[in-house]
Amino acid sequence: MTSSKDQGTSHSGRILISVDAMGGDLGPATVVAGIAQSATKNPDIGFILHGDQPMLEPIVARFKTLKGRCEIRHAEDVVAMEDKPSQVVRQGKTTSMWSAIECVREGEASVCVSCGNTGALMLLSVVRLRKLPGIYRPAIAVLWPSQNPQKHNIMLDGGADIRADAKDLMQYALMGTSYARNGFGLTRPRVGLLNVGTEEHKGRAELKEAYDLIQNNARNGDFEFVGFVEGRDLPGTVADVIVTDGFTGNVALKTGEGTAKLIRDLLKDAFRHSPLSRLASVLAYTSLRRMSKRVDPSRANGGVFLGLNGTVVKSHGSADATGVSAAVKLAFQLAETGFSEKLAARVASANPLDSEEMKLAQDNGDPE
Amino acid sequence: MTSSKDQGTSHSGRILISVDAMGGDLGPATVVAGIAQSATKNPDIGFILHGDQPMLEPIVARFKTLKGRCEIRHAEDVVAMEDKPSQVVRQGKTTSMWSAIECVREGEASVCVSCGNTGALMLLSVVRLRKLPGIYRPAIAVLWPSQNPQKHNIMLDGGADIRADAKDLMQYALMGTSYARNGFGLTRPRVGLLNVGTEEHKGRAELKEAYDLIQNNARNGDFEFVGFVEGRDLPGTVADVIVTDGFTGNVALKTGEGTAKLIRDLLKDAFRHSPLSRLASVLAYTSLRRMSKRVDPSRANGGVFLGLNGTVVKSHGSADATGVSAAVKLAFQLAETGFSEKLAARVASANPLDSEEMKLAQDNGDPE
Repeated sequence: MTSSKDQGTSHSGRILISVDAMGGDLGPATVVAGIAQSATKNPDIGFILHGDQPMLEPIVARFKTLKGRCEIRHAEDVVAMEDKPSQVVRQGKTTSMWSAIECVREGEASVCVSCGNTGALMLLSVVRLRKLPGIYRPAIAVLWPSQNPQKHNIMLDGGADIRADAKDLMQYALMGTSYARNGFGLTRPRVGLLNVGTEEHKGRAELKEAYDLIQNNARNGDFEFVGFVEGRDLPGTVADVIVTDGFTGNVALKTGEGTAKLIRDLLKDAFRHSPLSRLASVLAYTSLRRMSKRVDPSRANGGVFLGLNGTVVKSHGSADATGVSAAVKLAFQLAETGFSEKLAARVASANPLDSEEMKLAQDNGDPE
Repeated sequence: MTSSKDQGTSHSGRILISVDAMGGDLGPATVVAGIAQSATKNPDIGFILHGDQPMLEPIVARFKTLKGRCEIRHAEDVVAMEDKPSQVVRQGKTTSMWSAIECVREGEASVCVSCGNTGALMLLSVVRLRKLPGIYRPAIAVLWPSQNPQKHNIMLDGGADIRADAKDLMQYALMGTSYARNGFGLTRPRVGLLNVGTEEHKGRAELKEAYDLIQNNARNGDFEFVGFVEGRDLPGTVADVIVTDGFTGNVALKTGEGTAKLIRDLLKDAFRHSPLSRLASVLAYTSLRRMSKRVDPSRANGGVFLGLNGTVVKSHGSADATGVSAAVKLAFQLAETGFSEKLAARVASANPLDSEEMKLAQDNGDPE
């Protein structure tokens, strides 16, 4: 595991994070404010920042905490939210996103963080970093606020690929448990498969196949398979890792965000209703702020691309400085634990997963 | 429209609602308490209640408001949540659910309400009431709390059928707008198609086809098509009717419920945190109750099966008395407006929808 520490470490011994300064909806000033928050909290972190140098230099100079800890790499162009991923791969060499990923590819940093176009970031990461050996489809693992002790559940795929067959879902289970172990220190994560009902007769045919595949790999993957779960279990406590295709996962994620936003808005309205409720809101301010911090998706917004040679953390497009800082914190944790190498080892040990071998293993009563 | 008023009307001129007393998680006492709430609020409503007569009689007798307004029809058996829908269709003749639907089939009541097993209720409704002429796949329309003036958005399919092709999605748009017109009085509802991104290059192939079909029918369907929407728009304000397949719709619905529950739980924790926050919670009680009422899915829990010869309202399995009463209120509104007949007329006027005719219409520059 020494290699993971050597890679992406500066002369001063700091772990370097490669950051795309330009992708977010709120602009580079927010990204820089975010990395400055992280720098203040964590003395072992350093940055390579990618973007428009003349624009970035004065912003970085505003934060004393970044002095000597943030190298700026100039990139002419920016990937826009509406750019087609395939176009970015063909013509995006001069963008800050490309430069940020390249830094991981070259081993200068071990993890990259970007708030930019998810599709472009995913495709560019796949093309430049390449899939880990044995991986069929990389996935985005997203964090979901929950009442579990670790305070978050992991859901994947959050939208990297709109399709996933049974074998992909099986690999998502393996990748998700590896992430749960390294990111949250869970020794034996509970895995659930998202469906429309917990009764076995419900749901799509490919989900029944995935059910069997995941169940047969629970032992060697060292996780507990809790079976089918429903949408309400995403923020629930029955599973730590929830597996689904990227279409469903993305809709669920955005539905959760939308619901949280509606409740925040209605709460504000409710407290504006009368003089008494306005007084209550003053007294309740700290309580509400505590609650709001806990469920705000931008606090838990580090989506991680799993299944690549290198780690890429996708921060929410509309992340504020605190959101960027949360993504950087996650990037640091994953770099520090050598997550990418551990995931590769886990997937390698679980292969081969093809159904012929599975059937043999099942027939022998020994699901390896 | 006289027929719709004549049908399902008692001698006293009350509109009769057929209610399955036995399906809910909280038992028949909750269902009866719910219909009693409705009876108190609305003098024009009457009930035919289906279930175990010896059990129901003393419960009904407790509510003076139900006197002379609630006929009990004895049914030996109950459909359990874990019963397979196909089994219920074959062997469920003696259940309260069957009896409640039969009442609509025979024209004794114009709308049926049940809190029972969704799959069984759907299949039984389809088999006994049959699809409206021209309908490919019936759907469940569910209500989603939102900040739109009507306070709720309509999403369909909420889980009647896990699959839907482009033509089904097109019909969901027509059925949903008819429901929005009759249920909420919206003259020109805005329709959105659920996808993973609003950029046109994203998403599944069948969704692109559905996009074109819905767009081409917006004029004759008298709705505004706002294009692709995302999960966050389900409780949002950009659309009044959101169309998706039943798998995605069901996951989204339960994700929304789960998120709302998490926030309520965390809010309680937050207010328990310190003496000051406990004081605040006393003062904020009314405000929070107001907010909670607004987003509680059991208040807006009348899912409606669209596309059948007759109207079936599915109340949430865990609905409390207030939830049951909300479903009854919706059932009454739909019975009163002659919704089922209007939906049939709307679908008939939009047919044929097949792609050959569509292409011709497009070539002529006249999407009829």
